[in-house]
Amino acid sequence: MTQTASRANGASTPTDDMRVAVSTVIFSLRAGDAAPSVVIPLVRRTRDPHEGLWALPGGWLRDAENLEAAASRTLAETTGLAPSYLEQLYAFGDVDRSPTRVVSIVYWALVREDASHAGEPEDPENVAWFDTAALPPLAFDHAQIVDYALWRLRNKVGYSRIAHGLLADEFTLAELREVYEAILGRRLDPANFRRQVESSGTLIPTAGFRTGSHRPARLYRYNQDVELADRGPLHQ
Amino acid sequence: MTQTASRANGASTPTDDMRVAVSTVIFSLRAGDAAPSVVIPLVRRTRDPHEGLWALPGGWLRDAENLEAAASRTLAETTGLAPSYLEQLYAFGDVDRSPTRVVSIVYWALVREDASHAGEPEDPENVAWFDTAALPPLAFDHAQIVDYALWRLRNKVGYSRIAHGLLADEFTLAELREVYEAILGRRLDPANFRRQVESSGTLIPTAGFRTGSHRPARLYRYNQDVELADRGPLHQ
Repeated sequence: MTQTASRANGASTPTDDMRVAVSTVIFSLRAGDAAPSVVIPLVRRTRDPHEGLWALPGGWLRDAENLEAAASRTLAETTGLAPSYLEQLYAFGDVDRSPTRVVSIVYWALVREDASHAGEPEDPENVAWFDTAALPPLAFDHAQIVDYALWRLRNKVGYSRIAHGLLADEFTLAELREVYEAILGRRLDPANFRRQVESSGTLIPTAGFRTGSHRPARLYRYNQDVELADRGPLHQ
Repeated sequence: MTQTASRANGASTPTDDMRVAVSTVIFSLRAGDAAPSVVIPLVRRTRDPHEGLWALPGGWLRDAENLEAAASRTLAETTGLAPSYLEQLYAFGDVDRSPTRVVSIVYWALVREDASHAGEPEDPENVAWFDTAALPPLAFDHAQIVDYALWRLRNKVGYSRIAHGLLADEFTLAELREVYEAILGRRLDPANFRRQVESSGTLIPTAGFRTGSHRPARLYRYNQDVELADRGPLHQ
């Protein structure tokens, strides 16, 4: 048997010094006084390497744990929240990304501002939320990972209902537009936006209105029969 | 320090029994006498688990090897070819996907029928090409992986120039349409298809024609300044 066949059939000996971690980029919205912005939680590292720097929530993959379960677990531990959307982003495995060899399977998630708490964050003093437009220096290659996750989010908002994963069940068209604006990082024309989403057929008008300092605005909801995004045969 | 912070900061001990493999779904076209079909190479396993079954080309990730380098290496070892396109597909890590714990980082690739050989396949007697519409039983979860790769390919052909990765540099509109038909698994109306690709602005007519038993057909090429697909900030 040639060496190729040996490798292709798994006969060669793998290294013992390779470890698998799972991390998650968790997107949410923070409204404050102004327009909402996209925020993520980060965890302050309390040991080397990169002690004191901020890093994505995550941890080692456990023996009896599937990848998505590990992502859900660390998400709940960090934020106390349950995600409205969770998807694998990418596996990062460059030789020099960490002092030891670590392959990180990275997920990305959406959580709603008003999400019911699935539990309490377990270490709140070392967790903080940051605007993705003003991140601190990050440990390892996590800045590159966040850039890629933001690119995926921007792409996906263009051809799916992913924005709903950041909104309450009912919302006005202005609120929906502000989610798109926060993700895309640019203003959208309100009249054009209204025409596009109304013609998309994915929104259902409700009987309710949002009242306040402005003219009352119709509340909408998404058609719940439709998935937030088509994730293909893996998620059927 | 709480246990969460411990895990989030990588202090807990990872398992020693977890291994990382890299596999690749390698798409090409086979024309034969009829319309072309999408084919992939498989490797016959020569040892347990699943001895005798066909599996995706791949092997263990090496100590000093990046993920994409491992995918390129096993692709070259299996087919002797250089890919026209190579992209990470997904990380598969279910606990029960193998008798031992194996996380597989899977890539997908396109190779052209007429690709210049980068080398010789190292173990040709255990490699065979199969029509994706008539695959044999596959080892592990590789049937699920191929399904997902086909879904990604079909999606991507709709919004990028990925079909070019399966074509020679110059091609007729009929040849391009047959690539789309092979990937999508259905016939396309020739006149509609011509209108769509001509209006897309991505094709450049050449001075050449394909002559043969039919009316001479104009040869086109893709605009080489445009990437086959937008892969975002990871590939800039």
